[in-house]
Amino acid sequence: MRPGILAIVGVGLIGGSIGKAAKERRLAERVIGVEPNADSAQWAVENGVLDAVVSQVPDNADLIALCVPSDLVAQWVIKLADHTAPMFDVGSVKEPIVKEIELTRITPSQFVPCHPISGSEKSGPQAADGDLFDGCTVVLTPSINTGPMAQQACADFWQAMGASVVSMSPDEHDAALAVTSHLPHLLAFAFMGQVTDQHLPLTGGGFRDFTRIAAANPDLWWRIMQLNQGALSQALDDYADNLRELSDAIASGDESRGLALIEAAAQKRRAADCGAA
Amino acid sequence: MRPGILAIVGVGLIGGSIGKAAKERRLAERVIGVEPNADSAQWAVENGVLDAVVSQVPDNADLIALCVPSDLVAQWVIKLADHTAPMFDVGSVKEPIVKEIELTRITPSQFVPCHPISGSEKSGPQAADGDLFDGCTVVLTPSINTGPMAQQACADFWQAMGASVVSMSPDEHDAALAVTSHLPHLLAFAFMGQVTDQHLPLTGGGFRDFTRIAAANPDLWWRIMQLNQGALSQALDDYADNLRELSDAIASGDESRGLALIEAAAQKRRAADCGAA
Repeated sequence: MRPGILAIVGVGLIGGSIGKAAKERRLAERVIGVEPNADSAQWAVENGVLDAVVSQVPDNADLIALCVPSDLVAQWVIKLADHTAPMFDVGSVKEPIVKEIELTRITPSQFVPCHPISGSEKSGPQAADGDLFDGCTVVLTPSINTGPMAQQACADFWQAMGASVVSMSPDEHDAALAVTSHLPHLLAFAFMGQVTDQHLPLTGGGFRDFTRIAAANPDLWWRIMQLNQGALSQALDDYADNLRELSDAIASGDESRGLALIEAAAQKRRAADCGAA
Repeated sequence: MRPGILAIVGVGLIGGSIGKAAKERRLAERVIGVEPNADSAQWAVENGVLDAVVSQVPDNADLIALCVPSDLVAQWVIKLADHTAPMFDVGSVKEPIVKEIELTRITPSQFVPCHPISGSEKSGPQAADGDLFDGCTVVLTPSINTGPMAQQACADFWQAMGASVVSMSPDEHDAALAVTSHLPHLLAFAFMGQVTDQHLPLTGGGFRDFTRIAAANPDLWWRIMQLNQGALSQALDDYADNLRELSDAIASGDESRGLALIEAAAQKRRAADCGAA
Protein backbone atom coordinates (compact mmCIF):
# COMPACT_ATOMS: atom_id res chain seq x y z
CA MET A 1 0.00 0.00 0.00
CA ARG A 2 1.34 3.39 -0.98
CA PRO A 3 1.85 5.64 2.06
CA GLY A 4 0.23 9.08 1.91
CA ILE A 5 2.85 11.09 3.77
CA LEU A 6 6.45 9.90 4.02
CA ALA A 7 8.41 11.78 6.69
CA ILE A 8 12.21 11.66 6.54
CA VAL A 9 14.18 12.70 9.63
CA GLY A 10 17.71 13.67 8.60
CA VAL A 11 18.17 14.57 4.95
CA GLY A 12 21.75 13.61 4.15
CA LEU A 13 22.91 11.13 1.52
CA ILE A 14 20.65 8.28 2.66
CA GLY A 15 17.62 10.36 3.70
CA GLY A 16 17.94 12.41 0.53
CA SER A 17 18.19 9.31 -1.63
CA ILE A 18 15.05 7.85 0.00
CA GLY A 19 13.22 11.13 -0.69
CA LYS A 20 14.37 11.25 -4.27
CA ALA A 21 13.50 7.60 -4.90
CA ALA A 22 10.06 8.05 -3.31
CA LYS A 23 9.32 11.08 -5.46
CA GLU A 24 10.70 9.64 -8.70
CA ARG A 25 8.90 6.34 -8.22
CA ARG A 26 5.75 7.97 -6.78
CA LEU A 27 5.95 5.85 -3.64
CA ALA A 28 4.20 8.48 -1.48
CA GLU A 29 1.76 11.28 -2.11
CA ARG A 30 3.93 13.71 -0.23
CA VAL A 31 7.55 13.54 0.96
CA ILE A 32 8.45 15.83 3.84
CA GLY A 33 11.68 16.22 5.77
CA VAL A 34 12.91 17.21 9.19
CA GLU A 35 16.42 18.62 8.77
CA PRO A 36 18.11 21.05 11.17
CA ASN A 37 20.71 22.15 8.61
CA ALA A 38 18.88 24.99 6.82
CA ASP A 39 21.10 24.89 3.71
CA SER A 40 20.64 21.14 3.25
CA ALA A 41 16.89 21.49 3.82
CA GLN A 42 16.50 24.29 1.29
CA TRP A 43 18.67 22.52 -1.27
CA ALA A 44 16.60 19.34 -0.88
CA VAL A 45 13.31 21.15 -1.52
CA GLU A 46 14.67 23.07 -4.50
CA ASN A 47 16.18 19.96 -6.11
CA GLY A 48 13.39 17.40 -6.11
CA VAL A 49 14.47 15.52 -2.97
CA LEU A 50 11.60 16.70 -0.72
CA ASP A 51 8.22 18.39 -1.21
CA ALA A 52 8.58 20.40 1.98
CA VAL A 53 10.59 20.83 5.17
CA VAL A 54 8.83 20.74 8.54
CA SER A 55 10.08 21.29 12.09
CA GLN A 56 8.68 18.05 13.48
CA VAL A 57 7.18 14.78 12.29
CA PRO A 58 3.44 15.46 11.78
CA ASP A 59 0.85 13.20 13.43
CA ASN A 60 -0.60 12.23 10.07
CA ALA A 61 2.67 10.84 8.64
CA ASP A 62 2.11 7.31 7.27
CA LEU A 63 5.73 6.12 7.20
CA ILE A 64 8.75 7.55 9.02
CA ALA A 65 12.36 7.13 7.88
CA LEU A 66 14.85 7.92 10.67
CA CYS A 67 18.01 8.73 8.72
CA VAL A 68 19.98 10.17 11.64
CA PRO A 69 23.36 8.90 12.92
CA SER A 70 23.11 5.55 14.73
CA ASP A 71 23.67 7.04 18.19
CA LEU A 72 20.66 9.34 17.76
CA VAL A 73 18.18 6.68 16.56
CA ALA A 74 17.05 5.54 20.02
CA GLN A 75 16.07 9.02 21.18
CA TRP A 76 14.04 9.58 18.02
CA VAL A 77 12.25 6.24 18.41
CA ILE A 78 11.42 7.11 22.01
CA LYS A 79 10.30 10.62 21.06
CA LEU A 80 7.97 9.11 18.45
CA ALA A 81 6.88 6.14 20.58
CA ASP A 82 3.23 7.23 20.53
CA HIS A 83 3.17 7.75 16.77
CA THR A 84 1.11 5.09 14.99
CA ALA A 85 3.07 5.02 11.72
CA PRO A 86 5.67 2.32 10.96
CA MET A 87 9.14 3.78 11.34
CA PHE A 88 12.57 2.49 10.39
CA ASP A 89 16.17 3.59 10.81
CA VAL A 90 19.09 3.05 8.41
CA GLY A 91 22.00 2.59 10.85
CA SER A 92 24.94 0.37 9.92
CA VAL A 93 25.09 -1.28 13.36
CA LYS A 94 21.87 -2.78 14.77
CA GLU A 95 22.43 -4.50 18.14
CA PRO A 96 23.39 -1.34 20.11
CA ILE A 97 20.36 0.54 18.74
CA VAL A 98 17.95 -2.28 19.57
CA LYS A 99 19.54 -2.71 23.05
CA GLU A 100 19.44 1.01 23.81
CA ILE A 101 15.73 1.15 23.03
CA GLU A 102 14.94 -2.05 24.97
CA LEU A 103 16.69 -0.63 28.04
CA THR A 104 14.22 2.25 28.14
CA ARG A 105 11.33 -0.25 28.35
CA ILE A 106 9.59 1.90 25.75
CA THR A 107 9.76 -0.46 22.80
CA PRO A 108 7.26 0.60 20.18
CA SER A 109 6.04 -2.25 17.99
CA GLN A 110 6.02 0.04 14.95
CA PHE A 111 9.83 0.46 14.96
CA VAL A 112 11.65 -1.72 12.41
CA PRO A 113 15.47 -1.65 12.61
CA CYS A 114 16.75 -1.59 9.01
CA HIS A 115 20.09 -1.38 7.24
CA PRO A 116 20.27 -0.72 3.51
CA ILE A 117 23.67 -2.05 2.39
CA SER A 118 24.31 0.79 0.07
CA GLY A 119 26.16 4.00 0.41
CA SER A 120 28.83 6.12 -1.03
CA GLU A 121 31.99 7.85 0.05
CA LYS A 122 30.02 11.06 -0.65
CA SER A 123 27.68 12.73 1.81
CA GLY A 124 24.88 15.31 2.00
CA PRO A 125 21.61 15.60 0.05
CA GLN A 126 23.59 16.94 -2.93
CA ALA A 127 24.87 13.38 -3.43
CA ALA A 128 21.33 11.91 -3.19
CA ASP A 129 20.61 9.26 -5.81
CA GLY A 130 17.10 7.93 -6.47
CA ASP A 131 18.59 4.63 -7.66
CA LEU A 132 20.88 4.15 -4.65
CA PHE A 133 18.80 1.25 -3.32
CA ASP A 134 18.03 -0.36 -6.66
CA GLY A 135 19.60 -3.81 -6.57
CA CYS A 136 20.95 -3.47 -3.03
CA THR A 137 20.15 -5.65 -0.03
CA VAL A 138 18.26 -4.22 2.93
CA VAL A 139 18.58 -6.14 6.19
CA LEU A 140 15.65 -6.01 8.62
CA THR A 141 16.63 -6.90 12.19
CA PRO A 142 13.31 -6.97 14.06
CA SER A 143 13.43 -6.96 17.85
CA ILE A 144 11.04 -9.17 19.83
CA ASN A 145 8.70 -6.17 20.00
CA THR A 146 8.55 -5.35 16.30
CA GLY A 147 5.05 -5.92 14.92
CA PRO A 148 4.49 -7.91 11.72
CA MET A 149 2.45 -5.17 10.03
CA ALA A 150 5.13 -2.53 10.55
CA GLN A 151 7.73 -4.99 9.29
CA GLN A 152 5.68 -5.72 6.18
CA ALA A 153 5.13 -2.01 5.48
CA CYS A 154 8.89 -1.33 5.65
CA ALA A 155 9.76 -4.38 3.53
CA ASP A 156 7.22 -3.29 0.89
CA PHE A 157 8.66 0.21 0.81
CA TRP A 158 12.26 -0.98 0.34
CA GLN A 159 11.20 -3.44 -2.35
CA ALA A 160 9.38 -0.65 -4.19
CA MET A 161 12.72 1.20 -4.26
CA GLY A 162 14.27 -1.84 -5.97
CA ALA A 163 15.95 -3.46 -2.96
CA SER A 164 16.00 -7.12 -1.86
CA VAL A 165 14.92 -7.56 1.74
CA VAL A 166 16.38 -10.15 4.14
CA SER A 167 15.77 -10.59 7.87
CA MET A 168 18.14 -11.69 10.60
CA SER A 169 18.84 -10.97 14.26
CA PRO A 170 20.67 -7.74 15.14
CA ASP A 171 23.79 -9.57 16.36
CA GLU A 172 23.97 -11.82 13.28
CA HIS A 173 23.79 -8.64 11.20
CA ASP A 174 26.54 -6.91 13.17
CA ALA A 175 28.90 -9.89 12.98
CA ALA A 176 28.42 -10.21 9.21
CA LEU A 177 28.75 -6.49 8.50
CA ALA A 178 31.89 -6.31 10.65
CA VAL A 179 33.45 -8.61 8.02
CA THR A 180 31.88 -7.30 4.80
CA SER A 181 31.97 -3.58 5.52
CA HIS A 182 33.50 -2.35 8.78
CA LEU A 183 36.75 -4.33 8.53
CA PRO A 184 37.42 -3.26 4.89
CA HIS A 185 37.01 0.37 5.95
CA LEU A 186 39.40 -0.12 8.87
CA LEU A 187 41.97 -1.83 6.60
CA ALA A 188 41.70 0.87 3.94
CA PHE A 189 42.00 3.74 6.46
CA ALA A 190 45.11 2.13 7.96
CA PHE A 191 46.59 1.54 4.50
CA MET A 192 46.39 5.23 3.55
CA GLY A 193 48.71 5.94 6.52
CA GLN A 194 51.71 4.78 4.52
CA VAL A 195 50.81 6.40 1.21
CA THR A 196 52.77 9.58 0.46
CA ASP A 197 52.47 12.28 -2.20
CA GLN A 198 55.38 10.61 -4.00
CA HIS A 199 53.33 7.43 -4.30
CA LEU A 200 50.28 9.02 -5.90
CA PRO A 201 51.61 9.26 -9.49
CA LEU A 202 52.55 5.57 -9.18
CA THR A 203 49.02 4.29 -8.64
CA GLY A 204 46.57 2.66 -11.01
CA GLY A 205 42.98 1.49 -11.07
CA GLY A 206 43.65 -1.26 -8.51
CA PHE A 207 44.85 1.26 -5.93
CA ARG A 208 41.94 3.59 -6.63
CA ASP A 209 39.33 0.84 -6.21
CA PHE A 210 40.99 -0.65 -3.12
CA THR A 211 41.18 2.70 -1.33
CA ARG A 212 37.91 4.30 -2.47
CA ILE A 213 36.20 3.56 0.87
CA ALA A 214 38.99 5.38 2.71
CA ALA A 215 37.46 8.65 1.41
CA ALA A 216 34.28 7.98 3.42
CA ASN A 217 32.94 10.33 6.10
CA PRO A 218 35.38 10.07 9.06
CA ASP A 219 32.88 10.99 11.81
CA LEU A 220 30.32 8.48 10.58
CA TRP A 221 32.93 5.73 10.39
CA TRP A 222 34.48 6.46 13.75
CA ARG A 223 30.98 6.04 15.26
CA ILE A 224 30.28 2.82 13.35
CA MET A 225 33.59 1.29 14.43
CA GLN A 226 32.99 2.32 18.03
CA LEU A 227 29.45 0.93 18.03
CA ASN A 228 30.47 -2.41 16.52
CA GLN A 229 33.77 -2.68 18.35
CA GLY A 230 33.28 -6.24 19.61
CA ALA A 231 32.43 -7.86 16.28
CA LEU A 232 35.01 -5.71 14.49
CA SER A 233 37.74 -6.79 16.89
CA GLN A 234 36.85 -10.44 16.24
CA ALA A 235 36.92 -9.85 12.46
CA LEU A 236 40.31 -8.17 12.80
CA ASP A 237 41.71 -11.12 14.76
CA ASP A 238 40.55 -13.50 12.03
CA TYR A 239 42.09 -11.20 9.45
CA ALA A 240 45.44 -11.15 11.26
CA ASP A 241 45.51 -14.98 11.08
CA ASN A 242 44.77 -15.00 7.35
CA LEU A 243 47.32 -12.27 6.65
CA ARG A 244 50.01 -14.08 8.64
CA GLU A 245 49.34 -17.34 6.83
CA LEU A 246 49.70 -15.74 3.40
CA SER A 247 52.67 -13.55 4.27
CA ASP A 248 54.47 -16.53 5.84
CA ALA A 249 53.93 -18.51 2.63
CA ILE A 250 55.39 -15.62 0.61
CA ALA A 251 58.36 -15.14 2.94
CA SER A 252 59.21 -18.84 2.93
CA GLY A 253 58.54 -19.26 -0.79
CA ASP A 254 55.97 -21.98 -0.04
CA GLU A 255 54.40 -21.92 -3.49
CA SER A 256 51.84 -24.70 -3.05
CA ARG A 257 50.46 -23.09 0.12
CA GLY A 258 50.65 -19.46 -1.07
CA LEU A 259 49.21 -20.13 -4.49
CA ALA A 260 46.37 -22.19 -3.00
CA LEU A 261 45.43 -19.27 -0.74
CA ILE A 262 45.53 -16.76 -3.58
CA GLU A 263 43.59 -19.06 -5.90
CA ALA A 264 40.87 -19.59 -3.30
CA ALA A 265 40.64 -15.82 -2.82
CA ALA A 266 40.43 -15.13 -6.55
CA GLN A 267 37.82 -17.83 -7.10
CA LYS A 268 35.67 -16.52 -4.25
CA ARG A 269 35.93 -12.96 -5.51
CA ARG A 270 34.93 -13.97 -9.04
CA ALA A 271 31.93 -15.87 -7.67
CA ALA A 272 30.87 -12.69 -5.84
CA ASP A 273 30.65 -10.86 -9.17
CA CYS A 274 28.53 -13.59 -10.72
CA GLY A 275 26.06 -13.24 -7.86
CA ALA A 276 25.91 -9.44 -8.08
CA ALA A 277 22.89 -7.70 -9.56
CA MET B 1 59.37 8.45 -35.21
CA ARG B 2 56.79 5.84 -36.07
CA PRO B 3 58.26 2.33 -36.01
CA GLY B 4 57.74 0.24 -39.12
CA ILE B 5 57.38 -3.17 -37.52
CA LEU B 6 56.31 -3.57 -33.90
CA ALA B 7 56.95 -7.07 -32.57
CA ILE B 8 55.10 -8.17 -29.45
CA VAL B 9 56.35 -11.22 -27.58
CA GLY B 10 53.54 -12.64 -25.44
CA VAL B 11 50.04 -11.64 -26.45
CA GLY B 12 48.04 -11.64 -23.22
CA LEU B 13 46.17 -8.73 -21.69
CA ILE B 14 49.11 -6.30 -21.79
CA GLY B 15 50.69 -7.48 -25.05
CA GLY B 16 47.25 -7.58 -26.67
CA SER B 17 46.41 -4.09 -25.44
CA ILE B 18 49.69 -2.75 -26.84
CA GLY B 19 48.87 -4.38 -30.20
CA LYS B 20 45.36 -3.02 -30.24
CA ALA B 21 46.48 0.49 -29.24
CA ALA B 22 49.23 0.46 -31.88
CA LYS B 23 46.80 -0.59 -34.59
CA GLU B 24 43.99 1.75 -33.56
CA ARG B 25 46.34 4.72 -33.23
CA ARG B 26 48.44 3.73 -36.26
CA LEU B 27 51.63 3.74 -34.22
CA ALA B 28 53.33 1.13 -36.43
CA GLU B 29 53.01 0.05 -40.03
CA ARG B 30 52.73 -3.55 -39.01
CA VAL B 31 52.07 -5.25 -35.66
CA ILE B 32 53.23 -8.83 -35.34
CA GLY B 33 53.18 -11.18 -32.41
CA VAL B 34 55.07 -14.16 -31.02
CA GLU B 35 52.62 -16.22 -28.99
CA PRO B 36 53.00 -19.93 -28.22
CA ASN B 37 49.32 -20.35 -27.32
CA ALA B 38 47.75 -21.09 -30.72
CA ASP B 39 44.20 -20.15 -29.64
CA SER B 40 45.30 -16.79 -28.23
CA ALA B 41 47.38 -16.11 -31.33
CA GLN B 42 44.55 -16.90 -33.73
CA TRP B 43 42.05 -14.89 -31.71
CA ALA B 44 44.41 -11.90 -31.68
CA VAL B 45 44.81 -11.91 -35.46
CA GLU B 46 41.09 -12.34 -36.09
CA ASN B 47 40.11 -9.56 -33.71
CA GLY B 48 42.28 -6.61 -34.67
CA VAL B 49 44.96 -7.10 -32.02
CA LEU B 50 47.75 -8.24 -34.38
CA ASP B 51 48.36 -8.18 -38.14
CA ALA B 52 50.12 -11.53 -38.05
CA VAL B 53 51.66 -14.18 -35.81
CA VAL B 54 55.26 -15.26 -36.33
CA SER B 55 57.39 -17.92 -34.69
CA GLN B 56 60.29 -15.60 -33.82
CA VAL B 57 61.11 -11.91 -33.69
CA PRO B 58 62.22 -10.93 -37.23
CA ASP B 59 65.54 -9.15 -37.77
CA ASN B 60 63.77 -6.17 -39.32
CA ALA B 61 61.55 -5.42 -36.29
CA ASP B 62 61.85 -1.74 -35.29
CA LEU B 63 60.50 -1.96 -31.75
CA ILE B 64 60.12 -5.02 -29.54
CA ALA B 65 57.65 -5.33 -26.66
CA LEU B 66 58.50 -8.21 -24.30
CA CYS B 67 55.15 -8.89 -22.63
CA VAL B 68 56.15 -12.17 -21.01
CA PRO B 69 56.05 -12.95 -17.26
CA SER B 70 58.77 -11.14 -15.26
CA ASP B 71 60.84 -14.28 -14.68
CA LEU B 72 61.11 -14.88 -18.44
CA VAL B 73 62.18 -11.35 -19.43
CA ALA B 74 65.92 -11.83 -18.88
CA GLN B 75 66.16 -14.87 -21.15
CA TRP B 76 64.34 -13.01 -23.93
CA VAL B 77 66.61 -9.98 -23.59
CA ILE B 78 69.66 -12.23 -23.77
CA LYS B 79 68.23 -14.15 -26.73
CA LEU B 80 67.67 -10.84 -28.55
CA ALA B 81 70.94 -9.22 -27.38
CA ASP B 82 72.22 -8.84 -30.93
CA HIS B 83 69.02 -7.31 -32.24
CA THR B 84 69.39 -3.62 -33.01
CA ALA B 85 65.82 -2.52 -32.19
CA PRO B 86 64.91 -0.87 -28.89
CA MET B 87 63.09 -3.37 -26.70
CA PHE B 88 61.16 -3.01 -23.48
CA ASP B 89 59.45 -5.28 -20.97
CA VAL B 90 56.31 -4.59 -18.93
CA GLY B 91 57.10 -6.44 -15.68
CA SER B 92 55.71 -5.19 -12.36
CA VAL B 93 59.02 -5.70 -10.51
CA LYS B 94 62.19 -4.18 -12.03
CA GLU B 95 65.26 -4.73 -9.82
CA PRO B 96 65.36 -8.55 -10.14
CA ILE B 97 65.02 -8.33 -13.94
CA VAL B 98 67.77 -5.73 -14.26
CA LYS B 99 70.01 -7.69 -11.84
CA GLU B 100 69.43 -10.99 -13.63
CA ILE B 101 70.47 -9.47 -16.95
CA GLU B 102 73.50 -7.69 -15.45
CA LEU B 103 74.72 -10.96 -13.97
CA THR B 104 74.99 -12.48 -17.44
CA ARG B 105 77.34 -9.63 -18.46
CA ILE B 106 75.29 -9.41 -21.65
CA THR B 107 73.60 -6.09 -21.08
CA PRO B 108 72.26 -4.75 -24.35
CA SER B 109 71.99 -0.96 -24.44
CA GLN B 110 68.75 -1.23 -26.42
CA PHE B 111 66.85 -2.83 -23.51
CA VAL B 112 64.64 -0.40 -21.54
CA PRO B 113 63.01 -1.82 -18.41
CA CYS B 114 59.44 -0.44 -18.31
CA HIS B 115 56.37 -0.83 -16.14
CA PRO B 116 53.00 0.50 -17.29
CA ILE B 117 50.95 1.00 -14.11
CA SER B 118 47.81 -0.27 -15.62
CA GLY B 119 46.13 -3.60 -15.68
CA SER B 120 43.01 -5.42 -14.95
CA GLU B 121 41.83 -8.40 -12.97
CA LYS B 122 41.10 -9.93 -16.40
CA SER B 123 43.65 -11.71 -18.54
CA GLY B 124 44.25 -12.93 -22.09
CA PRO B 125 44.07 -11.08 -25.42
CA GLN B 126 40.26 -11.27 -25.26
CA ALA B 127 40.45 -8.62 -22.52
CA ALA B 128 42.80 -6.39 -24.59
CA ASP B 129 41.86 -2.72 -24.50
CA GLY B 130 43.40 -0.18 -26.86
CA ASP B 131 42.85 2.57 -24.28
CA LEU B 132 44.41 0.65 -21.37
CA PHE B 133 47.44 2.95 -21.25
CA ASP B 134 45.59 6.19 -21.92
CA GLY B 135 46.10 8.35 -18.83
CA CYS B 136 48.24 5.82 -16.99
CA THR B 137 51.81 6.26 -15.77
CA VAL B 138 54.64 4.25 -17.28
CA VAL B 139 57.80 3.99 -15.21
CA LEU B 140 61.12 3.61 -17.06
CA THR B 141 63.87 2.16 -14.88
CA PRO B 142 66.97 2.35 -17.08
CA SER B 143 70.02 0.36 -16.00
CA ILE B 144 73.50 1.89 -16.35
CA ASN B 145 73.71 0.19 -19.75
CA THR B 146 70.48 1.51 -21.24
CA GLY B 147 71.19 3.82 -24.16
CA PRO B 148 69.50 7.24 -24.42
CA MET B 149 68.15 6.60 -27.91
CA ALA B 150 66.43 3.36 -26.94
CA GLN B 151 65.02 5.10 -23.88
CA GLN B 152 63.65 7.95 -26.01
CA ALA B 153 62.10 5.55 -28.52
CA CYS B 154 60.26 3.69 -25.75
CA ALA B 155 59.14 6.90 -24.02
CA ASP B 156 57.79 8.23 -27.33
CA PHE B 157 55.90 5.02 -27.97
CA TRP B 158 54.23 5.00 -24.53
CA GLN B 159 53.33 8.67 -24.83
CA ALA B 160 51.75 8.03 -28.22
CA MET B 161 49.51 5.50 -26.46
CA GLY B 162 48.40 8.26 -24.06
CA ALA B 163 50.62 7.43 -21.09
CA SER B 164 52.73 9.74 -18.89
CA VAL B 165 56.33 8.61 -18.62
CA VAL B 166 58.49 8.95 -15.49
CA SER B 167 61.98 7.59 -14.79
CA MET B 168 63.47 6.26 -11.60
CA SER B 169 65.92 3.58 -10.45
CA PRO B 170 64.71 -0.04 -10.38
CA ASP B 171 64.85 -0.25 -6.57
CA GLU B 172 63.00 3.03 -6.06
CA HIS B 173 60.31 1.65 -8.37
CA ASP B 174 60.07 -1.64 -6.51
CA ALA B 175 59.81 0.03 -3.09
CA ALA B 176 57.05 2.37 -4.29
CA LEU B 177 55.07 -0.31 -6.10
CA ALA B 178 55.31 -2.60 -3.08
CA VAL B 179 53.20 0.03 -1.31
CA THR B 180 50.87 1.17 -4.08
CA SER B 181 50.15 -2.16 -5.75
CA HIS B 182 51.70 -5.32 -4.29
CA LEU B 183 50.64 -4.71 -0.67
CA PRO B 184 47.00 -3.91 -1.61
CA HIS B 185 46.84 -7.18 -3.53
CA LEU B 186 48.29 -9.11 -0.58
CA LEU B 187 45.80 -7.45 1.81
CA ALA B 188 42.84 -8.12 -0.47
CA PHE B 189 43.81 -11.78 -1.06
CA ALA B 190 44.12 -12.31 2.71
CA PHE B 191 40.80 -10.57 3.33
CA MET B 192 38.89 -12.93 1.03
CA GLY B 193 39.98 -15.79 3.32
CA GLN B 194 37.33 -14.86 5.86
CA VAL B 195 34.50 -14.13 3.44
CA THR B 196 31.91 -16.91 3.24
CA ASP B 197 28.97 -17.59 0.93
CA GLN B 198 26.69 -16.31 3.70
CA HIS B 199 28.45 -12.96 3.58
CA LEU B 200 28.05 -12.38 -0.15
CA PRO B 201 24.41 -11.17 -0.12
CA LEU B 202 25.45 -8.72 2.63
CA THR B 203 27.96 -6.80 0.54
CA GLY B 204 27.72 -3.48 -1.25
CA GLY B 205 29.74 -1.33 -3.59
CA GLY B 206 32.43 -0.70 -0.97
CA PHE B 207 33.16 -4.42 -0.63
CA ARG B 208 33.16 -4.91 -4.40
CA ASP B 209 35.64 -2.09 -5.00
CA PHE B 210 37.89 -3.06 -2.08
CA THR B 211 38.14 -6.68 -3.18
CA ARG B 212 38.22 -6.27 -6.98
CA ILE B 213 42.00 -6.83 -7.13
CA ALA B 214 41.58 -10.15 -5.32
CA ALA B 215 40.15 -11.55 -8.57
CA ALA B 216 43.50 -11.00 -10.33
CA ASN B 217 45.54 -13.77 -11.94
CA PRO B 218 46.91 -15.91 -9.05
CA ASP B 219 50.03 -17.20 -10.88
CA LEU B 220 51.04 -13.73 -11.99
CA TRP B 221 50.58 -12.32 -8.49
CA TRP B 222 52.38 -15.15 -6.75
CA ARG B 223 55.38 -14.44 -9.00
CA ILE B 224 55.22 -10.68 -8.40
CA MET B 225 55.09 -11.12 -4.63
CA GLN B 226 57.97 -13.59 -4.73
CA LEU B 227 60.08 -11.31 -6.91
CA ASN B 228 59.49 -8.25 -4.75
CA GLN B 229 59.53 -10.06 -1.43
CA GLY B 230 61.99 -7.74 0.31
CA ALA B 231 60.18 -4.48 -0.40
CA LEU B 232 56.80 -6.10 0.14
CA SER B 233 57.85 -7.39 3.54
CA GLN B 234 58.96 -3.87 4.53
CA ALA B 235 55.65 -2.43 3.31
CA LEU B 236 53.76 -5.06 5.30
CA ASP B 237 55.71 -4.21 8.47
CA ASP B 238 54.80 -0.54 8.05
CA TYR B 239 51.21 -1.54 7.46
CA ALA B 240 51.11 -3.63 10.64
CA ASP B 241 52.22 -0.54 12.60
CA ASN B 242 49.51 1.64 11.06
CA LEU B 243 46.84 -1.01 11.56
CA ARG B 244 47.82 -1.51 15.21
CA GLU B 245 47.74 2.23 15.86
CA LEU B 246 44.23 2.61 14.46
CA SER B 247 42.81 -0.56 15.99
CA ASP B 248 44.27 0.38 19.40
CA ALA B 249 42.54 3.77 19.15
CA ILE B 250 39.24 2.05 18.33
CA ALA B 251 39.60 -0.52 21.13
CA SER B 252 40.44 2.11 23.72
CA GLY B 253 37.85 4.59 22.44
CA ASP B 254 40.58 7.21 21.91
CA GLU B 255 38.47 9.46 19.71
CA SER B 256 40.95 12.28 19.15
CA ARG B 257 43.65 9.83 18.00
CA GLY B 258 41.36 7.53 16.01
CA LEU B 259 39.46 10.30 14.29
CA ALA B 260 42.69 12.11 13.41
CA LEU B 261 44.02 8.95 11.71
CA ILE B 262 40.79 8.40 9.77
CA GLU B 263 40.56 12.06 8.77
CA ALA B 264 44.14 12.05 7.49
CA ALA B 265 43.38 8.90 5.49
CA ALA B 266 40.19 10.34 3.99
CA GLN B 267 41.87 13.63 3.10
CA LYS B 268 44.77 11.86 1.41
CA ARG B 269 42.42 9.59 -0.52
CA ARG B 270 40.33 12.54 -1.75
CA ALA B 271 43.49 14.35 -2.86
CA ALA B 272 44.42 11.25 -4.89
CA ASP B 273 41.19 11.59 -6.86
CA CYS B 274 41.82 15.25 -7.60
CA GLY B 275 45.20 14.34 -9.05
CA ALA B 276 43.83 11.49 -11.20
CA ALA B 277 43.38 11.88 -14.93
